[in-house]
Formats: sequence, structure tokens, C-alpha cells
Amino acid sequence: MSLLIVGTVAFDALETPFGKTDKILGGAATYIGLSASYFTKKSNLVSVVGGDFPQENIDLLNKHNINTKGLQIKADGKTFFWSGKYHTDMNTRDSLVTELNVLADFDPIVPDEYQDCEFLMLGNLVPTVQMKVLNQLKTRPKLVVMDTMNFWMDVDMENLLKTIAKVDVLTINDSEARQLSGEYSLQKAAKKILAMGPNYLIIKKGEHGALLFNKDQVFFAPALPLEEVFDPTGAGDTFAGGFIGYLAETRDLSFENMKRAVIYGSAMASFCVEKFGTERLIGLSREDVETRIQQFVDLVQVDISLVY
Amino acid sequence: MSLLIVGTVAFDALETPFGKTDKILGGAATYIGLSASYFTKKSNLVSVVGGDFPQENIDLLNKHNINTKGLQIKADGKTFFWSGKYHTDMNTRDSLVTELNVLADFDPIVPDEYQDCEFLMLGNLVPTVQMKVLNQLKTRPKLVVMDTMNFWMDVDMENLLKTIAKVDVLTINDSEARQLSGEYSLQKAAKKILAMGPNYLIIKKGEHGALLFNKDQVFFAPALPLEEVFDPTGAGDTFAGGFIGYLAETRDLSFENMKRAVIYGSAMASFCVEKFGTERLIGLSREDVETRIQQFVDLVQVDISLVY
Repeated sequence: MSLLIVGTVAFDALETPFGKTDKILGGAATYIGLSASYFTKKSNLVSVVGGDFPQENIDLLNKHNINTKGLQIKADGKTFFWSGKYHTDMNTRDSLVTELNVLADFDPIVPDEYQDCEFLMLGNLVPTVQMKVLNQLKTRPKLVVMDTMNFWMDVDMENLLKTIAKVDVLTINDSEARQLSGEYSLQKAAKKILAMGPNYLIIKKGEHGALLFNKDQVFFAPALPLEEVFDPTGAGDTFAGGFIGYLAETRDLSFENMKRAVIYGSAMASFCVEKFGTERLIGLSREDVETRIQQFVDLVQVDISLVY
Repeated sequence: MSLLIVGTVAFDALETPFGKTDKILGGAATYIGLSASYFTKKSNLVSVVGGDFPQENIDLLNKHNINTKGLQIKADGKTFFWSGKYHTDMNTRDSLVTELNVLADFDPIVPDEYQDCEFLMLGNLVPTVQMKVLNQLKTRPKLVVMDTMNFWMDVDMENLLKTIAKVDVLTINDSEARQLSGEYSLQKAAKKILAMGPNYLIIKKGEHGALLFNKDQVFFAPALPLEEVFDPTGAGDTFAGGFIGYLAETRDLSFENMKRAVIYGSAMASFCVEKFGTERLIGLSREDVETRIQQFVDLVQVDISLVY
């Protein structure tokens, strides 16, 4: 009945035009879990951290309905660490440091009590690790959503394609969709990618919104024009968390409901970028979320039935 | 009761990844006029061409409800000529040739029979020429829409700002909005630009849609994901033509109707890019336009009243 989340739990050190942080809580699974917590009452985490990972971070995850039974703690290892610096346009960034640490030989283990999960979110990770998790589940989940990135297209396309073939929804950004398909037109790219296996493709375009495709339909969700984008780190993961969290809670996999889920994911991502790291994803109220959803609806609302 | 259009009428030679053209009909006023012709029954053109401009092009404009009484023909001059080459992403282009020719000393003259115009479209031109047209009108139009470009921000900001201060709606693209305001955030840019005079600002984002701002509201119109963008030349002018043509026809200047006008402008622009030059803007049916409008509506349609 619950959501299973696989992905990194990490430390990030971030620099944007608005300031910089020391090592703060990060990682795809962290953003996914926090975002999903506003919708689903129970999610289960599979990930790995080192002995340097503070208990207060685990407490924070638990407080957000995230079961950490499947979070491996390697006492003599160090937590995955990434440091990056964003350029003025916030759309490009340089990786300054990437220390895989305990992630280097991560062997995911799905605890028995997670076996009943109906929704699986495969956060960006080595494709073979994503596949290992899928293979450990005795019953295939109702919905498997997978996020990935260009890096795996560069270094392990073979296993990436095998994993993509097994999932229901793939989420990637526009340049990754172009790289994966070899097509510049996103319409054409979507057709090719859907032929690789998934029934749904979400193309994330950052400040330009997101597209949801199935074989016959397309839906576009705008991004909210914000006064300031403070730190884009985790926005894509936060989107995915809102998307799958909303679906896990509503248990309706129609295209109509997927469209709503894309709006909820976009709304959560719009919060994420307003502060550094996960800060804005902590302590939002249900009312905050609903108010933001209404802004998304209003942004594109037009009554055009009036024929002139 | 009619629409007055001021802007260039030109020859373009275009090269895109899909092919290239010889000198074909182009110019901001041409695209604006053809696009507007699908909505308004009468528009009046003020522009200039050389003796090399063929009568068949004038006939084409006339056939599209465009009065060419104000089109000056300089028999011993040559028509403005621009040649450009687009890069693979279609978002960037190199100007190969720019021959101003008769445009260099263009002195716009508004014929008496144009004086009753209620809608004025100032296509991209030297800001002082745009101002000269506005000053010749004995009664200020109900609505003045102005398009411009980064070039005038670089070389004549002073006169550009004077002209902007006189108009109701300014249309520019996202990088121009950033340059004009000195703000990266489009929300902040819009605030600053609206303080310069216009009551409405439209920020065109090409394949990423368009934003309409007034002091209190914002509306976003998506762009249609197309199988192929064949040639983006004139898309912004076509957008402007659809926008003001729809407003001139419906004669309703509420924000709600401006939103519709932005969708109509976007729909016309989506046709424009499907073929070279003005080709796709000739011979569309009313049904073609309405079908396209419906695609824009469907693209963002989501029923989110359902509270989970």
C-alpha cells in the first residue's frame, strides 16, 4: 500500500549567486521523500550513508513519514558528497567535488516489510542498482517511476536501456530526452523514448515547465514565474516526489490524474527552489501547497469557449 | 475602426537545417498583416519598399485585407534585405547580410484615410520612426502595441524608452526583457518594465511559450510542441499580428480577452514556423485556426477541483 523510494542520501555543499552553504542534507531520495511526504502517509527508503551521517537527519526523515529501515549505515564509511556551483542563469552548474564514498559499492537491500509497496520511485542512480531493486520485489508494483541523467547515457547506455524498458514512467530533462533519442524535436524524442518501454514520459524543462506524454496524448504544465530562484538543487527530485506521492495517495493511474500529479510535482519543485537545499520542503502546510496549486491553475486559465 | 500596422516589408534569404531559400517576401509588417488578416477585416499598412518589389507581393497583401495606400514605393531604391542562417537548435541565428536600402531614410507618412484607426501595431523599427507614426495620429488609438528588439537597446536606449513610455502593450523576448530591465527574474523584469509606461508586457519565449503581465496579474500561454520547427523567421511578428488582430476584431480590452489574444497569437506563430517564410500564413482556413486553438486549450487543460 505504500511508496518505496530508492536513491541517494547525501551531503551537498552549494554555491549560487545568492550565497553558499556548508555540507547540508541532500540526495535524490531525500528530496523525493520530503516532497512525497506532503501527500502519502507512508514511504519506505532504500539507500546508504556513512557513519558521519547525523541522527538528526534520520529523525527529520522519520518525521516526514519516511521509514528508514532500508537505509544502510556504513559506520566506517563516509556519506556521498557533492559540491556544485551555479552560474548566474541557474540553468548551468559546475560540479566542484563528487566523492562517491559509500555509494561506490552500494548494494541495495529491500527489507521484507517493504515488499507490499505498490509504488516504486527509482531515483537517479547506477542503472544496475535501480534494476537490482526492481528484481528484489516479489510482486511488481502498480507503478514504477524512474529518474536518470545524462551521465548514465554517456557511460552505461546498455544497462540504462534495459532498466528503462522495465519502468512505467521515465522522467528526464529536455537535453537528456534529446540525447537519449537522438531527436531534437521533443515530440519526436517522446515517440522514440516511449518505444523503448515506458508508457509515460515526463520531460522536465526547469523554469520552462514540464511535458507529460503517453502514446496518444500530451500535457504541458507550466513553471511558476518566481521572483527569485534561490537554489535549483533537488528541484527535479522534488518534482518526482510530488508526482509519485500524489499518485500513491490518490491511487488513480488515469492520464487525467497523471496530469494532476504533474501539477503537484511542479508546485513542490517551485517551493524547493525558493531556499537553499531542502529548507523550504520542511514545515510546509497543506494550505501552502493548495494555494500554490491554485496559482498554477490560474496561470494558464483562459476561457476561450467564447467564439468571436 | 481598423488596424494600422507600421513595420518593415522586406526580402529575406533564409537558411535552416531543413533547407534554404532565395529572396522571399519577409518583413515584420508582412507577417503582422498576414497573421492579423485571419481576424480583422481591414488593416492599413505604413511601410516602404524599392522599385524591385514585385506587384504580386502587393496583390498578396491586398488579398489579405491589407490596405497598401501607405506603402511607399521608392522606384529608384531597393527593398530592405536580410539574410540569416539558423543553428540546429533554431533558437540562435547569424545575420549574414543586412542591407537597409530604402529603409535607411524611411520617413513614415500616415495617409488621411488611416486616421480613424483604433488599433496601432508598431512593428520593430527605429524607435524614432515608431514615435513619428504615433505623433501623426490626430486621435490616440484605443490600443497601441509595440514590438522592438535588443539592437535598439544597444544603440538608442534613450529614444527607445521615450517610445515605450507612450504605448499600451510592449512585446519583447525573454533575453530582451532581461536586458531592458537589468533583472534576470522575469517577474522582477516585468515589474520594472511596466513602470516604464506600458500597462501590459508580453514576454515571448519562443518554443517555451509567452507570458502576459499587467501590474497585478500574470498569464502564461504555452507553445505547442511541434514535430518540427522548420523556420522560426517571423514567428514573433506573426504572434503580434494574431494578438492585435484578435483584439481589433473582438474590441474587448479586458485582461481576460488579452489572454485569449495571446493564445490566438501563439496559435498563429505555431503555423508560421511550420514552413519557410510566410508560406504557411497564406491560405489557412478559419477551421485550421480554430482546430489549432483547441490544441492549445487541451495542452494545459486539467481538472484539479477534485480534492484528494
